[in-house]
Amino acid sequence: MKIYNFSAGPACLPKAVLRQARRELMFYGESGMSVMEMSHRSADYEEIHEKAKADLRKLLSIPDNYHVLFIQGGASMQFSMVPVNLMTEHRRAYYVKTGEFAKKALAEAKKLGGVMVPASSEDRAFAYIPELKKEMFTEPADYVHITQNNTIYGTRYTKLPDTGGLPIVTDMSSNILSEKINVSDYGLIYAGAQKNIGPAGVTVVIIREDLAGKAPENTPSMLDYGVYVKNDSMYNTPPTYGIYISGLVFSHLLKNGGIEAMQAYNEKKAALLYDYLDSSSLYKATADKKDRSIMNITFVTGDAALDKRFVAEAKTYGIVNIKGHRSVGGMRASIYNAMPVEGIKKLIEFMKDFERKA
Amino acid sequence: MKIYNFSAGPACLPKAVLRQARRELMFYGESGMSVMEMSHRSADYEEIHEKAKADLRKLLSIPDNYHVLFIQGGASMQFSMVPVNLMTEHRRAYYVKTGEFAKKALAEAKKLGGVMVPASSEDRAFAYIPELKKEMFTEPADYVHITQNNTIYGTRYTKLPDTGGLPIVTDMSSNILSEKINVSDYGLIYAGAQKNIGPAGVTVVIIREDLAGKAPENTPSMLDYGVYVKNDSMYNTPPTYGIYISGLVFSHLLKNGGIEAMQAYNEKKAALLYDYLDSSSLYKATADKKDRSIMNITFVTGDAALDKRFVAEAKTYGIVNIKGHRSVGGMRASIYNAMPVEGIKKLIEFMKDFERKA
Repeated sequence: MKIYNFSAGPACLPKAVLRQARRELMFYGESGMSVMEMSHRSADYEEIHEKAKADLRKLLSIPDNYHVLFIQGGASMQFSMVPVNLMTEHRRAYYVKTGEFAKKALAEAKKLGGVMVPASSEDRAFAYIPELKKEMFTEPADYVHITQNNTIYGTRYTKLPDTGGLPIVTDMSSNILSEKINVSDYGLIYAGAQKNIGPAGVTVVIIREDLAGKAPENTPSMLDYGVYVKNDSMYNTPPTYGIYISGLVFSHLLKNGGIEAMQAYNEKKAALLYDYLDSSSLYKATADKKDRSIMNITFVTGDAALDKRFVAEAKTYGIVNIKGHRSVGGMRASIYNAMPVEGIKKLIEFMKDFERKA
Repeated sequence: MKIYNFSAGPACLPKAVLRQARRELMFYGESGMSVMEMSHRSADYEEIHEKAKADLRKLLSIPDNYHVLFIQGGASMQFSMVPVNLMTEHRRAYYVKTGEFAKKALAEAKKLGGVMVPASSEDRAFAYIPELKKEMFTEPADYVHITQNNTIYGTRYTKLPDTGGLPIVTDMSSNILSEKINVSDYGLIYAGAQKNIGPAGVTVVIIREDLAGKAPENTPSMLDYGVYVKNDSMYNTPPTYGIYISGLVFSHLLKNGGIEAMQAYNEKKAALLYDYLDSSSLYKATADKKDRSIMNITFVTGDAALDKRFVAEAKTYGIVNIKGHRSVGGMRASIYNAMPVEGIKKLIEFMKDFERKA
């Protein structure tokens, strides 16, 4: 049976990428060895590393005054690296509270400096993105942190706040490469790879050059963006195989129309599912319409026992990992770039069958 | 041409492991997906995770009062995590200076607390392990840090110091799983995976349970061993694919006689090469005989131009990454577990041909 993997992350990867990885697994090009076996100082690996960076730059039209870094530790490590490196002048920052990961980012920042919360959507179980007004950002601060797409609650920012010039730091783990962005709108973008980029263990950081190299003197080297910049993310051995797979994904996207084509495809996939949800009398999408994510689509039947049966029966259709996050229940269809439209159609087919029988 | 990869890390992996990885790359077991695509909360991945841990425990006979953790960031991240977590009572520790990585560990520790250097081998370009006497460790301290095998200089500890009860913290990145150890002799063992375990991006930490959970309150979660212990190394998404490959390596070792068989094989390989070096009039092993590593074998001709030619001509025999570290020059043959004895024989064959012509 064909499996459609709706996991929130690690998540499905393009089949073409996996096929190429399989083809090259034991012997990469003329090297006579696996990418996993390559010295990170070898010419073969350096080419992989530089091409991955260059292709990501092309995909997102990253301006020259931004560095692209490959770091380890996921978004969770960025929750600490961001305040360590950026909370250096005013020693405080704004954190918008729009979900579990936003709260985690905030909690880690609080260990290291002052945190101000201009707005929260906790009052309605994070089902929306609160309105952010310029007047909310009048205190001196080093940056404004947002979680651009909220994986658990299925919401996303459809426009950026006017922060009155404060740099925006964004967690883009679950929506990077899914739609066009203007990198210049941000001070720093970070994203764990395991949703829309590649395997877990790689984190992409895109940082405006004036924000790197500001960490206090006694900062551990591995937490200092300046060290990554100076060493082209090779101060120590980087997660070479993960970067290689990420590079295959970047190259695959470029070959298939880049971000614009991807965005059109993602909007089409999301519309299919939301339209069906809105027309159904059994299912209910949980996020406010205006803030709906096109990557993580959350819905419920309103009956926890029925939700549980839904998740169990979905498996018989090859639909897996559709269960909502344990903190909210219900269902979540994570439909990242690599989820084909056939997966959405299969899901809707099952949902209709299930609704008929329910 | 068959390639023998003498890289110091990332380094060669067992061919049987790579073959299995290739076989399973697109579809793991009955899951219908790649291990890279699996949710880290799925039953399939959890089994991989637990089996990797259990097999490592078996291989090293790790006692029950030690935790096995999978962390990201390599040994370099441990250079900071160790002092953050362990320099908590006396706020200082002993660091033995036996090479570049020992110096890096020391430098990171200095940022966080007091460092005492009981002995160093810097006077003779780190060509030996200094004698360590109990009288050197009389000051109050939280631990003694050693670098068990010095990748760049080709030395290793053949016995552990008597520290008068202070916990020994060891960087075993380049010799873990190569010879029998007694885990109870240590407070904490750490090792980047990319030499003798698996792909870069996974770090193994083996920590005595009383040493975990002592980090100060405001420690970033991702730097706190206690957080890894409490969450079975899944506080956030672990480097799942790297852990999977590491697990394949553990299982491969168990199937092939475990550490005892590996040690015998490694000693045989190293003896072949050292015996030849000692009998040669052209080449000279650089490390003191008593402290010779069986993982990294460093040698020179005494003529930098000739060394350079050696490295270049070696490639025509399929011998790659034999160049010494840029800080010392000469040659280095890294002969980790996965380097077959045929590789050593091929190297010696080339060395003899080269000597004849030189």
